[in-house]
Amino acid sequence: VYHVTWDADAAEKGGYEHFMAKEIHEQPKVIKDTMTSRIIKNEKIRLDDITITKEQIKNIDKIYIVACGTAYHAGLIGKNAIEKLARIPVEVEVASEFRYRDPIINEKTLMIVVSQSGETADTLAALREAKRQNARVIAVTNVVGSSISREADDVLYTWAGPEIAVASTKAYVTQLIAMYIIALFFAENKGTLSNEEIEAIKEEMLLLPEKAEKLLQNEEDIKAFAEENHMHKDMFFLGRGLDYAVAMEGSLKLKEISYIHSEAYAAGELKHGPIALIEDGTVVIALATQESLFEKMVSNIKEVKTRGANVLAFAMEGHTEIEKTVDTAKYIPRTIELLAPVLSVIPLQLLSYYTSIAKGCDVDKPRNLAKSVTVE
Amino acid sequence: VYHVTWDADAAEKGGYEHFMAKEIHEQPKVIKDTMTSRIIKNEKIRLDDITITKEQIKNIDKIYIVACGTAYHAGLIGKNAIEKLARIPVEVEVASEFRYRDPIINEKTLMIVVSQSGETADTLAALREAKRQNARVIAVTNVVGSSISREADDVLYTWAGPEIAVASTKAYVTQLIAMYIIALFFAENKGTLSNEEIEAIKEEMLLLPEKAEKLLQNEEDIKAFAEENHMHKDMFFLGRGLDYAVAMEGSLKLKEISYIHSEAYAAGELKHGPIALIEDGTVVIALATQESLFEKMVSNIKEVKTRGANVLAFAMEGHTEIEKTVDTAKYIPRTIELLAPVLSVIPLQLLSYYTSIAKGCDVDKPRNLAKSVTVE
Repeated sequence: VYHVTWDADAAEKGGYEHFMAKEIHEQPKVIKDTMTSRIIKNEKIRLDDITITKEQIKNIDKIYIVACGTAYHAGLIGKNAIEKLARIPVEVEVASEFRYRDPIINEKTLMIVVSQSGETADTLAALREAKRQNARVIAVTNVVGSSISREADDVLYTWAGPEIAVASTKAYVTQLIAMYIIALFFAENKGTLSNEEIEAIKEEMLLLPEKAEKLLQNEEDIKAFAEENHMHKDMFFLGRGLDYAVAMEGSLKLKEISYIHSEAYAAGELKHGPIALIEDGTVVIALATQESLFEKMVSNIKEVKTRGANVLAFAMEGHTEIEKTVDTAKYIPRTIELLAPVLSVIPLQLLSYYTSIAKGCDVDKPRNLAKSVTVE
Repeated sequence: VYHVTWDADAAEKGGYEHFMAKEIHEQPKVIKDTMTSRIIKNEKIRLDDITITKEQIKNIDKIYIVACGTAYHAGLIGKNAIEKLARIPVEVEVASEFRYRDPIINEKTLMIVVSQSGETADTLAALREAKRQNARVIAVTNVVGSSISREADDVLYTWAGPEIAVASTKAYVTQLIAMYIIALFFAENKGTLSNEEIEAIKEEMLLLPEKAEKLLQNEEDIKAFAEENHMHKDMFFLGRGLDYAVAMEGSLKLKEISYIHSEAYAAGELKHGPIALIEDGTVVIALATQESLFEKMVSNIKEVKTRGANVLAFAMEGHTEIEKTVDTAKYIPRTIELLAPVLSVIPLQLLSYYTSIAKGCDVDKPRNLAKSVTVE
């Protein structure tokens, strides 16, 4: 008898050292897969399985986006997109808080739940509470046949494929794409944007996969920064607007797999307390991809620089003037502000990945964490 | 000539070593002052200077509470109180984010701005944006004649008196009282609560000054805990519902004056990432004053205990069963859940105060911070 010895695990990782690396690198593909057949130039948004009618959409006066962890951060981007494009008020809330606070829900309320696994206990409970109060529920999930997909009125699947690493990466970016699709779909149905405006956004969306690919080719820079800075006990992430939501996600990633106490702040809140923590050498990751907030963000960066921070900043290509203010500047390919989170999160995922490796942590299975939180 | 040498500074501190200590101890009085003439048994809420009419209140379909730092934390309690008592949807947002995100505002929108100084730059800008879009603005401020008080439609003054320490304490508790008064006033005008329900809440409010006084008599316990634990570099604050808002305020206080990297979490979010940071000996301050969430909170405490955390918990008097789960238990005098934040924040203020002293920091003038942030 001849025994073939092969490592099933390594085979599944497709040549990468960890599932997380594989999943980070799959992002251009899954972004594309989640748009395919839904976003087509010069055609209406296609959501074949969604049964909500134009009349029902027009009737919505309040949307709750309810989720946990990383999916909650996708919800923050969703709020911005839906309010901006479709002008419907949106409140985003963590499921464990939402379900116990007697929220105001009625038949004009729409709930959007976001859960990679579709089994998150608190999110499922929030969905049931909304249904009990006659609100309509759209689920954004990655798992066909999951509890959340079965109990929601409508489901928009993210086509991220199986995500094995505990820290979510590719599922998160597909959740962002789902949020943009929903916002465009509502805008189209409500007539809040012109066809030209909708087409312009779709065109930019269709360019995201190749821009994400381009970002992934520069990972050596991020790896070097991670190797130089992995010994810090604290890090701060700053941003304004959509960059703040991305900062929260970047900070959570770092926390989850490298155990560094990182924290994200709305840059404008710095002076109201947290700036007291900045001292000589403190690492600050500053996101400055939102062009309309660029100058404000540079002012905030100067505040932490004055206190001695070591700043790594991310801006859109072309904004080289940021190099005068920060220690290290990195750029993301140009896109519209609204879509920048899909790109800017990628170097942050890489930063947490390489920091975790530099520290010798278990990247794919961080201590104390489970992939899906199916208990309260 | 005979020169009298006396220390004006010491005189102003009324015998306390720091302004912050004096201000913490003034809280029973300022809570009372802020209620006086407004909350009277068996009479309607009296807000003589507020010109908003019953019709206008009934017409409000959305309230934004906009503020920065500590005042934002008061706003979180305000949202809960207004939604619960008056059933009007409320969104709370930090001013520096609100003003740049093109929020949905119309003539049915009410904005409540909260600012101790009445001069906070971002909050003032948000007020002006709301006025420009024809929304009505109520200001909650401590300074008569401040810019915010002059530009708002209505002003509800907090009678905290001058607050000198940079870290806000007495102004915060009076902001909480203002929030409860507004919530009751709206509930009365909208008829969402019965007279009996309103009277029951008022009765509990009128008991707060003496309960706050009682809490201040036990500060030795908190001082001892601070002295034992001041050398930690990180601390975590946990809570659910209103306790989460108080956890955020407690965490900010500690950050501001002791430079410990503290962070607050909604306890239900722990398992979605941050629990990775808990290791042997990590200090966790757990708030468990909300009786309806008590059991859930105890489960979350068990999760961090399993990972080795050193837990200091605050519960309402009578919940001695918590001692089975935590390392140190402290109690606050019994009151209704809604009002618990006024009491539970006091030991957290004392904790940050004594930690700051134990570390030898400048309690009243922490590094990098100004009392009022009058620039963006």
